[in-house]
Amino acid sequence: MSTLTQPIGLFDSGLGGLTVVKELIRALPHESFIYFGDTARLPYGNKNPAIERYALENTYCLVEKKIKALVIACHTASAFSLSTLRKTFEIPIIGMIEASVQKAIQTTRTGHIALLGTKGTVQSNIYPKSIQKLLPSAQVTSIACPLFVPLIEEQWIDHPTTRIIVREYLTPLRNKPIDTIILGCTHYNLLQKIIQEEVDANITLIDSASACAEHLSYFLQEYRLTAPSQSFVSHQYYTSEDPISFRLHAENIFGHSLSTVHFLSSETAAKASSLI
Amino acid sequence: MSTLTQPIGLFDSGLGGLTVVKELIRALPHESFIYFGDTARLPYGNKNPAIERYALENTYCLVEKKIKALVIACHTASAFSLSTLRKTFEIPIIGMIEASVQKAIQTTRTGHIALLGTKGTVQSNIYPKSIQKLLPSAQVTSIACPLFVPLIEEQWIDHPTTRIIVREYLTPLRNKPIDTIILGCTHYNLLQKIIQEEVDANITLIDSASACAEHLSYFLQEYRLTAPSQSFVSHQYYTSEDPISFRLHAENIFGHSLSTVHFLSSETAAKASSLI
Repeated sequence: MSTLTQPIGLFDSGLGGLTVVKELIRALPHESFIYFGDTARLPYGNKNPAIERYALENTYCLVEKKIKALVIACHTASAFSLSTLRKTFEIPIIGMIEASVQKAIQTTRTGHIALLGTKGTVQSNIYPKSIQKLLPSAQVTSIACPLFVPLIEEQWIDHPTTRIIVREYLTPLRNKPIDTIILGCTHYNLLQKIIQEEVDANITLIDSASACAEHLSYFLQEYRLTAPSQSFVSHQYYTSEDPISFRLHAENIFGHSLSTVHFLSSETAAKASSLI
Repeated sequence: MSTLTQPIGLFDSGLGGLTVVKELIRALPHESFIYFGDTARLPYGNKNPAIERYALENTYCLVEKKIKALVIACHTASAFSLSTLRKTFEIPIIGMIEASVQKAIQTTRTGHIALLGTKGTVQSNIYPKSIQKLLPSAQVTSIACPLFVPLIEEQWIDHPTTRIIVREYLTPLRNKPIDTIILGCTHYNLLQKIIQEEVDANITLIDSASACAEHLSYFLQEYRLTAPSQSFVSHQYYTSEDPISFRLHAENIFGHSLSTVHFLSSETAAKASSLI
């Protein structure tokens, strides 16, 4: 197998990263993907320092499957593990943060940007730091929204209670000249409609999945890793928990049926190798 | 150290089990407890089949610390691992389910009982089965309430949104002659007040922590393991994630300061032993 036709690996704490894969498959139709959802240990949102170890174990297992590059399809894992993974593995690796930051900076006119994320991502302070590195005058308002993921998992996406909670979390943005909001968790893309309805129509939401697709396309070109257009394409899905339930949720996100979902315990596989 | 003065071990997926320890310390003041909160892998609520492995690893680590008995301070872990743990370890072990079931049967007059629990506990069907074994005419209405734990972790215990969500989850109980509701998850004890306000005043809520304290007291007597009244008492706390954050949450539940909280990665310790 030539390097170019090797798959791109992705991991996330569970299902949220599937919104990223969906967008990557649409935007990069000649690439193959291997997705690992670590549902047995989800959520990662508030689990620093364990996240770094989980990320190492997950990446080890994906590297074993001969991936040509890795996308950390989870903002919190990107915040806490990107630099360690880059030091540990030789393949090119991207996270979710750079892509959203670049897109936000291209979008904002007022320099007032809001970030919605998990507690872990907000506490890491990585968004304000990365934004201000590129745009020192930027003002970033960060809001942790820990109830969003459980609401989405409960499938209360159009539920009146979700609207009340969205409104409450967005209260600190009122009376600020915010013009750009980063949806800083892959799950939050599923709440895009309700969030847009609750803020001024002139505010642009940065959907991290499409920002990531643009970034990955550029990145593959830079590393000369783009798959040729006649490539045989195959996508594989792994989960550390019940594959049947994972498949049902994934099919719901994709809107079509999936071939087999495999079980993989990344912690066991990585430890058995004695490399981690 | 005599067996009688050895500590009693408890584990839970995180913080919910602390409501149980608090009640056990109050009810059994001569006993010492070692609590392990597996916060790095929480929640267990919807993680069958991984729960059984987690329970084995956690119990192995507690047994290494010379406990005289074990309380599985988590309903979901009790549902999925009690029989395996009893087969694997020699110490006496109790779960959260028997205690609540016995209390509910002593309480109900109509035989109509409701169970509020995690998705895992509800899907296991263990409550209806255990109740109907003792009271075949009983009618059990089970409701999965997956948003309760995140709301409690967000400390929205008295929040108006929590009341709306409680009301929505309890809708299936309307117009049924329910007289007993089992709070079938250790976290839910913290929502006892709001749940009681949302149901008929004649309905009795079964608080699983106090049911467990009664059951454990009887159980220790039966196994002749009760600590003598002059015992030196010491309580220890372990977590698989950030001990500082765990301590803050624990102090909030206990209402007083705690001595040191230790870090313990039960999966690593259990695997290193090569016994699991």
